[in-house]
Amino acid sequence: MSDYTLHNYFRSTTSLRVRAALNMKGLDYDYVSYALLNNDHKSEAYLKLNPQGLVPALVTKDEAVLTQSMAILEYLDEEHPKPPLLPEDMLGRARVRALAYIIAVDIHPINNLRILKYLETEFGADADAKKSWFHEWAHHGMEALESRLVDEPKTGVFCHGDTPTMADICLYAQMFNNQRFGMDMSAYPTIMGIFRECECLPAFADAAPLNQPDTPS
Amino acid sequence: MSDYTLHNYFRSTTSLRVRAALNMKGLDYDYVSYALLNNDHKSEAYLKLNPQGLVPALVTKDEAVLTQSMAILEYLDEEHPKPPLLPEDMLGRARVRALAYIIAVDIHPINNLRILKYLETEFGADADAKKSWFHEWAHHGMEALESRLVDEPKTGVFCHGDTPTMADICLYAQMFNNQRFGMDMSAYPTIMGIFRECECLPAFADAAPLNQPDTPS
Repeated sequence: MSDYTLHNYFRSTTSLRVRAALNMKGLDYDYVSYALLNNDHKSEAYLKLNPQGLVPALVTKDEAVLTQSMAILEYLDEEHPKPPLLPEDMLGRARVRALAYIIAVDIHPINNLRILKYLETEFGADADAKKSWFHEWAHHGMEALESRLVDEPKTGVFCHGDTPTMADICLYAQMFNNQRFGMDMSAYPTIMGIFRECECLPAFADAAPLNQPDTPS
Repeated sequence: MSDYTLHNYFRSTTSLRVRAALNMKGLDYDYVSYALLNNDHKSEAYLKLNPQGLVPALVTKDEAVLTQSMAILEYLDEEHPKPPLLPEDMLGRARVRALAYIIAVDIHPINNLRILKYLETEFGADADAKKSWFHEWAHHGMEALESRLVDEPKTGVFCHGDTPTMADICLYAQMFNNQRFGMDMSAYPTIMGIFRECECLPAFADAAPLNQPDTPS
C-alpha cells in the first residue's frame, strides 16, 4: 500500500507542486486522475472528498483528506522533515514563503482555468484577450520575483540558498503555465537559471506534466 | 520604539489579517498608511521596500522586511508562539491552513482592487459586472468553507475548536469585502456565527477597517 493517494491532474500546476514535494520526500503515492476539461473534479464523489471541487487532494493511509496545495506542502514538511522544504531560521522561512506566495497567491489563482473560462463566457474574451490577461498577472509577479532574487543576498543556486525549497517548487510548476501561454521570459534570467537547476532534479522532473500516467501520448 | 512597523491601509484585507495577528500576540506596531487609490504603494520608496508593490509589509526592529500576509502570519506565529494561530497537531494545522487558503488563495487575490480595475479598463466592466465577478468567486469559496465547517467535527466556536486561528483571521477579514460588495450571506449561517464570535474579540475588532488611523472620518 502506498503512503498516500493523490487526486490530481497531469497539467494542474497545484498538483505538480504536491507531486514534486512527495518525490523530494521519497514518498510513494497512488495517482488518481481527474480530467479537468471533462469536469471530473465536479463529480459528486470528488466533491464529497473536497467540497471546493479543486485538485489536488491528498489522502493519507488513515483516510485523512488534505486539500490546498500550499497547506499540503506545509503538512508534508512537518510530517517528513527531511529533506526540508523550508530553511530552519524564521526569517529564512518567511522569505521562502513570501517568494512562494508571490506565485501561489498572486499569479496562479488569477490565471487558473476557471477564471479564463469565466472571462470567455461573461466578457467574450477570445484567445488573445485571455493570453493578455495571463501575461498581465504573470509578468507582474515574475518582475517582483526576479527583482527580489537579484537583490537579496540569500538567493543561491535556488531561490534560497543552494537547496530547493517550497519557493522553487512554486517557481518550477508556474513555468509550465508560462510556457503554455507563450510568455517571453528573457527579462528574468535569474528565474530562468533557477528553473534550469530545478529541471535537473529528478524529484521535480518526475512531477512534470509530460511524465504523468494521464499525460496524453 | 515599537516592535514592528506595518506598512498598510485601513481597508486592505491582507493588512487587516496582519493587524489582527499582531493584536492577538500583544505586539505594538507603528502604522504607516498607503492610500491605494492614490497609488501610494507604487511609489519608488515603497517598491524599494516591497518590489511587488502590494501592502502589507512588516518591518522588524532589525529592519528585516516581511511581505505576503500569509507568510507574515506564519512568521509571527513562529516568533511569538502564544497565543497560537495554528493548532499543535499536524492534521489540525493542515486543516486550518486549508480553510485559510480557501479564502486567501482562491477568493481574495481574484477579487482584489487591481483585478477589478483591469476588468473595467480592458473589458469595460461596469459596477454590476464587477459585483457579479466578486460574487462568483466569493460565493464559490464561501460555499466550500460553509460545507466543510458544517461537516467536519473539528469545527467549534471558531473554524477549528474554540480558540481563533489563522483561518478565523482570514474569514473575519474577508467579511468586510463581502459586505462592501453586498453579498447575501444567508446561506452561510456557520460562517456568520464564527464571524460574530470574531467581532467580539478585541484583537480582531481593533484591526477592523473602521478603527484605523487612516480611516476617513
